[in-house]
Amino acid sequence: MKQERVFSYGKGDVFAYRTFLTPLTGVRQIPESAFCGRSNVVFGVNVKVEIAGNQLLTSFTEGDNSLVVATDSMKNFIQRHLGSYEGSTIEGFLHYVGEEFLKKYDHIDSIKLIGDEVPFESINRVSSSGLTESDLVFKNSRNEKAQASVEIVRNGTDFEIVNQSSGLLDLQLIKVRGNSFVGFIRDEYTTLPEDSNRPLFIYLNIGWKYENVEDSTGLDPVVYVSAEQVRDIASSVFHDLETPSIQYLIYLIGCRVLERFPQLQEVNFQSQNHTWDSVVEDIPNSSGKVYTEPRPPFGFQRFSVTKEDLKNKQEVTTTNNLSK
Amino acid sequence: MKQERVFSYGKGDVFAYRTFLTPLTGVRQIPESAFCGRSNVVFGVNVKVEIAGNQLLTSFTEGDNSLVVATDSMKNFIQRHLGSYEGSTIEGFLHYVGEEFLKKYDHIDSIKLIGDEVPFESINRVSSSGLTESDLVFKNSRNEKAQASVEIVRNGTDFEIVNQSSGLLDLQLIKVRGNSFVGFIRDEYTTLPEDSNRPLFIYLNIGWKYENVEDSTGLDPVVYVSAEQVRDIASSVFHDLETPSIQYLIYLIGCRVLERFPQLQEVNFQSQNHTWDSVVEDIPNSSGKVYTEPRPPFGFQRFSVTKEDLKNKQEVTTTNNLSK
Amino acid sequence: MKQERVFSYGKGDVFAYRTFLTPLTGVRQIPESAFCGRSNVVFGVNVKVEIAGNQLLTSFTEGDNSLVVATDSMKNFIQRHLGSYEGSTIEGFLHYVGEEFLKKYDHIDSIKLIGDEVPFESINRVSSSGLTESDLVFKNSRNEKAQASVEIVRNGTDFEIVNQSSGLLDLQLIKVRGNSFVGFIRDEYTTLPEDSNRPLFIYLNIGWKYENVEDSTGLDPVVYVSAEQVRDIASSVFHDLETPSIQYLIYLIGCRVLERFPQLQEVNFQSQNHTWDSVVEDIPNSSGKVYTEPRPPFGFQRFSVTKEDLKNKQEVTTTNNLSK
Amino acid sequence: MKQERVFSYGKGDVFAYRTFLTPLTGVRQIPESAFCGRSNVVFGVNVKVEIAGNQLLTSFTEGDNSLVVATDSMKNFIQRHLGSYEGSTIEGFLHYVGEEFLKKYDHIDSIKLIGDEVPFESINRVSSSGLTESDLVFKNSRNEKAQASVEIVRNGTDFEIVNQSSGLLDLQLIKVRGNSFVGFIRDEYTTLPEDSNRPLFIYLNIGWKYENVEDSTGLDPVVYVSAEQVRDIASSVFHDLETPSIQYLIYLIGCRVLERFPQLQEVNFQSQNHTWDSVVEDIPNSSGKVYTEPRPPFGFQRFSVTKEDLKNKQEVTTTNNLSK
Repeated sequence: MKQERVFSYGKGDVFAYRTFLTPLTGVRQIPESAFCGRSNVVFGVNVKVEIAGNQLLTSFTEGDNSLVVATDSMKNFIQRHLGSYEGSTIEGFLHYVGEEFLKKYDHIDSIKLIGDEVPFESINRVSSSGLTESDLVFKNSRNEKAQASVEIVRNGTDFEIVNQSSGLLDLQLIKVRGNSFVGFIRDEYTTLPEDSNRPLFIYLNIGWKYENVEDSTGLDPVVYVSAEQVRDIASSVFHDLETPSIQYLIYLIGCRVLERFPQLQEVNFQSQNHTWDSVVEDIPNSSGKVYTEPRPPFGFQRFSVTKEDLKNKQEVTTTNNLSK
Repeated sequence: MKQERVFSYGKGDVFAYRTFLTPLTGVRQIPESAFCGRSNVVFGVNVKVEIAGNQLLTSFTEGDNSLVVATDSMKNFIQRHLGSYEGSTIEGFLHYVGEEFLKKYDHIDSIKLIGDEVPFESINRVSSSGLTESDLVFKNSRNEKAQASVEIVRNGTDFEIVNQSSGLLDLQLIKVRGNSFVGFIRDEYTTLPEDSNRPLFIYLNIGWKYENVEDSTGLDPVVYVSAEQVRDIASSVFHDLETPSIQYLIYLIGCRVLERFPQLQEVNFQSQNHTWDSVVEDIPNSSGKVYTEPRPPFGFQRFSVTKEDLKNKQEVTTTNNLSK
Repeated sequence: MKQERVFSYGKGDVFAYRTFLTPLTGVRQIPESAFCGRSNVVFGVNVKVEIAGNQLLTSFTEGDNSLVVATDSMKNFIQRHLGSYEGSTIEGFLHYVGEEFLKKYDHIDSIKLIGDEVPFESINRVSSSGLTESDLVFKNSRNEKAQASVEIVRNGTDFEIVNQSSGLLDLQLIKVRGNSFVGFIRDEYTTLPEDSNRPLFIYLNIGWKYENVEDSTGLDPVVYVSAEQVRDIASSVFHDLETPSIQYLIYLIGCRVLERFPQLQEVNFQSQNHTWDSVVEDIPNSSGKVYTEPRPPFGFQRFSVTKEDLKNKQEVTTTNNLSK
Repeated sequence: MKQERVFSYGKGDVFAYRTFLTPLTGVRQIPESAFCGRSNVVFGVNVKVEIAGNQLLTSFTEGDNSLVVATDSMKNFIQRHLGSYEGSTIEGFLHYVGEEFLKKYDHIDSIKLIGDEVPFESINRVSSSGLTESDLVFKNSRNEKAQASVEIVRNGTDFEIVNQSSGLLDLQLIKVRGNSFVGFIRDEYTTLPEDSNRPLFIYLNIGWKYENVEDSTGLDPVVYVSAEQVRDIASSVFHDLETPSIQYLIYLIGCRVLERFPQLQEVNFQSQNHTWDSVVEDIPNSSGKVYTEPRPPFGFQRFSVTKEDLKNKQEVTTTNNLSK
């Protein structure tokens, strides 16, 4: 009996930068965000590509390189296709290059691509008419960034997208007050005190999946969901909530994202807690406090929110309102 | 209809160091390795713990903390149990602390634990009888390290180990000659020249799974497979092979590991290629060359070797020998 | 004869966060920047402290701890004094805590303090009146950050500031076109082609020193120079210049900073060149190109600009204008 | 009056690897170390080069590139000279390449070079005669590494070495018991308890300077001091001492290095304290304890030991012995 096993290979850290890519315009605006598009004067992406195929087995078991596409060639393929890509999003680029790769090499069964944005922010210049955004100089940001991934499988003469996700990585938010953590289990392993007003410092990775994967490419910008908008929803929900836990916060962020973007089927979260430890609790004539970096261990959560949650939540809300 | 979804939480970077843990002795030696045990005078592990359970759902959807074990308490639980652990391996410690956790908190359905070794190497001291290994001073190593993981699920009143793996991470090996990469596909995307004698620089993560998970704990040291032994097999196989590709190299390493340790069912690999680029090819009166760091993109491979492979390989070898 | 030697000790990575520190207001605005103050709702600084004194010699040569202030106590001293600090800048805080430390421990001869900003950016929330900046939620930024340092020496019963500097670290700017690098030495070691229109990607550390160190504290905000303003000058000058080299760019940025802020005596630079390599030069119907990450080696420059330069430059400019 | 100022430029992260460099043999052995040479089958160095010269001023102030050696050419110069270098140490290579650079470009006044070893450790292979060290496969180590630096200034038609240092970076040692820290100042800022038996975890950078800079090159291996030997002295002294403080430990290590190597004039230290915090103090039937990672702040020390110290120490020892 033939065993199922994983075998694949590919290339990581394929950095590709493009100047003057087609701008992203026509995105539908939402109340939580001023985002309405990207100039794409400079567009940066770090791609990881991984390919698989039954015909590649002997490259492992016999050292037969005759069907091996060198990973150096994969890098060339990706970088050159960024030159011919006519869309305006990472999602769209990965779809494009993935399908082209499978068309070119017909002994390859499937391809996975992950693209991490290398973000560039606009920065000011002074001109005769005052301060304006420069259209030539940009700031490389090491803060939160978009990520997209796609997996495409050959299906006869056609290609099937079996996985597509979009996301926002490494958003780090602090809310200075209005967060509690009380009511948890207390026993002989508990040394953490209850805290009814802590500064909550969280790291967030947020992912989302479309009902229809084609909507992810940005070809129809009205149904495209941008990482910038999801970031702005997260900060706005965080601001408004008296936060009893990160668990509840991410649930509510997920619900809000699904409310704003009905074209999505799911929002998922990887969150971390990096809340500071208190050093000075009382400062005369000030509501301020002094904190310091915690020890290395950090709490984390994983959760996904679906339309089912949204429906349940609305029923609960309606019931609550009726019973008042 | 109730949807399946991921929801879990936990604690990462739980560093726990123990002095004078029970030494590991009685390991079976293999030809490729001088390893025969660990003193465990200092034992360091960085644990990640993740728990799940249906009763935790309302902690997300309603902000109800009443069944939440604080992640700070998880950290305390792990660190204190390193004090009461009487075995001598990371695998054994994770089994122990995982089961104890499920016993303590019966509303938790499952627990995953990953432990990364913080390695300490012995170092010399001079004594009246010459150079000896110090039994007090050790060197913290940032090189390759062992890793183990386990997932335990509550099953009525019992606990079932549904996943166990051991591994070696971040081994970086260079072989200065005797490696080729030729015969791969050449087309319009190919710029890499064929090379019949390159210095091959690889990063290796190697994982293994036991036929019987109980063998992984080290309680019976004769069947315990150490990361040090796997490392030594890797370097020995690499030395001997005229390497036509990383793919074939890892296949052969996997076969050798399974030959030495029939208690294993599988060996798996994540390898990376970080081979240098040539700068000076010809140095008068020297077989040496000058190289430099490559650009960031790196090739990678994933592969798993099973006993089935071993059987196929032996048949091939036998056939080849017979036909000579 | 007694030899001069370095001996000192201290504490690094002393993270201190303060909520609701006195806001910075009243900063004088410049054309290149919209900056006019900091709310200081959350203020973060990573301090390194180093102390020296002749009486500490025996702590090294004899292991005598009787005059040793534990570095743990230094950490406490710094963190608690952030609670009592009433100003609004890192420079002011370091002055304050440094003098207080020397007052407290009169066997210490001198103290050096370096403070790296942990930057937090404002982020939007939606409110009934539309999008506004949240006064509770902030984003932790890993981009450019301010830095300040001070060295204070005991001088009888008084304290003398022997070194003070302010700065901006890790600003990363790309200008997508309008940069050349031509006319440099060509010989047998030259493989770099001349390039009359490259995308120039630079990392900048910029430091500045005041004529009067007291001006650095922000007590009189009108003479305080903020890192945000220096950043905005850098991007504006970069935008305007047809850049023939990083050398000339930083010289011009330095001149502009000194023009805007006559209270400074010097501006100094550590710059790095991380310009991408070309992959696709010609894209049909587009002025765009495709680039990729360069190899690891990076060029760097160090330079300081003083008022003398400003005077020379103005003379040159005047002479040039007269001769037209 | 013309002001003195810093202006210079150069290239960092110039990685250069050489296979089959001349082996280092004939090193004088010391009791604390088994080190007797390096095979140099693979030799790796990461070079930073920085050049200065009055004629370079207009490259900054006027954007005049006519005397600029491109940093890319510097990289080529360094890498190619590793091909023609016939010695066997980083120190020797930096001397060689620095002088050759000044010879080639006579408008350059001075050059600074820093070289960080990229260390490769030998690893075992199994052969017919048992386990031996492979002469083809090596392990890239991310542990402690050697460093050397040199500054050469043009002096008429000659070159003067104005600074030379050798060193060992990033050695991390733990001693599990036999270390105390007591008797330090206790006041209102003290929260650290006295500890008469702590596990002391230190990071060490150790530098040394020769009386005669020519001795540093390894041309005469008998007077060459290797980083491996200094490392072994450090661990041996650490083992033997009941350590009352890091201050005293580094003083004694420095004295021992100077005793073993009279060709040196100075040994200097940058040390850090990363000692763990206690979690479980008492474990039944064990002398072991459980510890965890400390918070981020770390103590550090700087100290240099000279022959004067050695003389003073011997006098003290002699006096003490006489008075017994």
